[in-house]
Amino acid sequence: MSIKIFLDESEMPRQWYNVAADLPPTPPPLAPNGEPLTPDVLSPIFPMNLIEQEVSTERWIDIPEEIVDILYRWRPSPLRRAVFLERALGTPAKIFYKDESVSPAGSHKPNTAIPQVWYNKKFGTKTLTTETGAGQWGCALSFACSLLGLTCKVYMVRISFDQKPFRKTMMEAWGGKCVASPSNETESGRKYLAKDPSMPGSLGIAISEAVEEAVADKSGSTKYSLGSVLNHVMLHQTIIGLEAKKQLAKIGIKKPDVVIACAGGGSNFAGLAFPFIHDKINGENIDIIPVEPTSCPTLTRGIYTYDFGDAAGLTPLLPMHTLGHNFMPAPIHAGGLRYHGMSPLVSQAVKCGLAAPMALPQLESYSAALTWARTEGFVIAPESSHAIAAAIREANKAKEEGKEKVILLNVSGHGLMDLAGYSKFLNGELTDYSLPQEEIDKAERELDNLPKI
Amino acid sequence: MSIKIFLDESEMPRQWYNVAADLPPTPPPLAPNGEPLTPDVLSPIFPMNLIEQEVSTERWIDIPEEIVDILYRWRPSPLRRAVFLERALGTPAKIFYKDESVSPAGSHKPNTAIPQVWYNKKFGTKTLTTETGAGQWGCALSFACSLLGLTCKVYMVRISFDQKPFRKTMMEAWGGKCVASPSNETESGRKYLAKDPSMPGSLGIAISEAVEEAVADKSGSTKYSLGSVLNHVMLHQTIIGLEAKKQLAKIGIKKPDVVIACAGGGSNFAGLAFPFIHDKINGENIDIIPVEPTSCPTLTRGIYTYDFGDAAGLTPLLPMHTLGHNFMPAPIHAGGLRYHGMSPLVSQAVKCGLAAPMALPQLESYSAALTWARTEGFVIAPESSHAIAAAIREANKAKEEGKEKVILLNVSGHGLMDLAGYSKFLNGELTDYSLPQEEIDKAERELDNLPKI
Repeated sequence: MSIKIFLDESEMPRQWYNVAADLPPTPPPLAPNGEPLTPDVLSPIFPMNLIEQEVSTERWIDIPEEIVDILYRWRPSPLRRAVFLERALGTPAKIFYKDESVSPAGSHKPNTAIPQVWYNKKFGTKTLTTETGAGQWGCALSFACSLLGLTCKVYMVRISFDQKPFRKTMMEAWGGKCVASPSNETESGRKYLAKDPSMPGSLGIAISEAVEEAVADKSGSTKYSLGSVLNHVMLHQTIIGLEAKKQLAKIGIKKPDVVIACAGGGSNFAGLAFPFIHDKINGENIDIIPVEPTSCPTLTRGIYTYDFGDAAGLTPLLPMHTLGHNFMPAPIHAGGLRYHGMSPLVSQAVKCGLAAPMALPQLESYSAALTWARTEGFVIAPESSHAIAAAIREANKAKEEGKEKVILLNVSGHGLMDLAGYSKFLNGELTDYSLPQEEIDKAERELDNLPKI
Repeated sequence: MSIKIFLDESEMPRQWYNVAADLPPTPPPLAPNGEPLTPDVLSPIFPMNLIEQEVSTERWIDIPEEIVDILYRWRPSPLRRAVFLERALGTPAKIFYKDESVSPAGSHKPNTAIPQVWYNKKFGTKTLTTETGAGQWGCALSFACSLLGLTCKVYMVRISFDQKPFRKTMMEAWGGKCVASPSNETESGRKYLAKDPSMPGSLGIAISEAVEEAVADKSGSTKYSLGSVLNHVMLHQTIIGLEAKKQLAKIGIKKPDVVIACAGGGSNFAGLAFPFIHDKINGENIDIIPVEPTSCPTLTRGIYTYDFGDAAGLTPLLPMHTLGHNFMPAPIHAGGLRYHGMSPLVSQAVKCGLAAPMALPQLESYSAALTWARTEGFVIAPESSHAIAAAIREANKAKEEGKEKVILLNVSGHGLMDLAGYSKFLNGELTDYSLPQEEIDKAERELDNLPKI
């Protein structure tokens, strides 16, 4: 039985898929002051070649061959069939998963880190700044900068920095520099520290710091890099779903019935799902499910409006589902799923009914992760465990209905740097947490002061 | 350019290679009291089917198809060409590496954990006990027991248990039970704790505890499992080298010029090298290099004689290179290379001149690991870094000589659970350590009291 489907180098996708070509146009991003966004607002932050990609509506965009060469170190990632989980569940469903944990950085993040560093290098950038939550993006960018010879500076959300000291070591192994955020190195950081020296930080604050450092370099040789949310990031990640389609075709499967991926800022979900949203727009019947934690329910309970990408209001205003840029997420362990906002393209897909989000509690997700380890064998990232939990729900539904559904999911990364969370779960120290309605009402009032879509 | 060579399921080796068929016979193991070893000494420890494999001199041994099915989850492991390292070194050598980090447990250890658990299950064993140093073997056996439904109990060397708390969590994710050794759970453990309650432990002590627990179960349903040293373990690991040969053949390479792997108890080295020792015996010209740390130089400076596998003298006496079973290794970070003894088959191969061991210092090895991360991209185990360091020496030699040598090495595992060592190296907190001659003289005097070969 085919339980692993590989592609060789010649079968690697040579183009990314741009869902912006097929979705109704998203409302335009705005400058932080609410005015129309002009290139001079973005150009101190990003190189022009990536800005062009960000606004492109071309459906297929060529992947430069030099980027293919680097991605080929670990890509195409395997598509595996989770036969051992299927057997344990006694489901007639066939469960397939893309395994993005095989990259050197251990997650899907290098799929966009490599192109972003490559385009920046081409443009003349010498240093990239960024933020990281759980640490996966900081590792991915350090890794990519190391291979291509750029300097990398990472602001890591303090609570993760303290909980996961070895993420910093990993970044340093690749020559990256990692500081805890809020830090003393930026005005934004100092402002937050002055209010509360022991504050745990947030992705929004870390983004403010990284953007501030990039913009402050008037020589223009420092730029900022974002690991999720933006259109060009979603674009780069579509290589996951494009490979998966080829891999399923290889074993005679025309289309999956259900596509599942966890969604924090949206890039992991978009990477797997957008190529299938393309098919759905063209008439295929596919259930497409982004999964988020009940503690940070951006898509299922957030407000669709303009909001800042960061906490300090330095980024452009993006049209997206958001819990408000002042949202302070509960310290659950799936650090990659704690962002207040969501990719505008993912938000748009949900808005159009092309994807139907689901929010799952933490305990069910960890429990699914243990089931996975004890059947499929791999210890996966707490983020990915949300996708596994949703897949188990779908597989059980297929069992009840007696349907031989094909379920496709994405394992965004391994959980080897996240064992503190597993340990707490195994010791019964974790609880479920659902965001109180007051928090959402508060966000709604605050967002009322920003421009409306 | 072919930088990754995969095999598909049909190309997986269906037989293990038993080097005992081709080496001069090793001196027979003896009972702990020095008498000839009879099956009733071994049968409380190991199941009879593995004892038969242990003493077999058949050259090729069939791999049961059920074991192939499980190994196929991650095997055949990729053979990759380290082109990026080659370019950085400017060497004419071609460097290939087997990547054993792709297994769910993250190392080569599951190659023998799966067969050992499978044969035990067939024999009726319900519980397996074992020891672990760095934690890789404990994870591998927990993983294997989880898939096949056995109970797993792991005695983990206390210094590693304290330094690497998440190894325990990993074992628990697979349902394994892990305790620090010396423990209060066995007579051997209590004896050591009585002398020194804070003693860091050693592999030898942990083996004593695990063997004691197995033998104490008079129902016979508890057996002991060893992750290295023994003949059947070497046998199971040969799948690595057998795959590598097929992979090299696929790209037209008849044989490597140099084969390199790190050696602690010997299984990682044997796994890659024994199939090439077969070729060497049959006339091929291949340099075969086991690499060990200067702090635990078993093959390069140890004594070839009978010694116990454990510290308390509960195991049979094995003919091997040893630093003495009372050897207390310096706390270097390559925990998997800190064993006092060596596989009798590896010892025999070295004795016969079929392999030429090399001892390397810690700092050169960590430095090689960083070079590897910044060229090839992967963060590898500190054990494997010794092989990388040796490969860099060989590649530089090839450069000096202007020779297009083919170097084949084994990356035994990833380093994601070993980042504390990387952190200390990056912070300049590590030093080199070479075992003083007095230690070896002392071992020689102690070993004088045991039977001679």
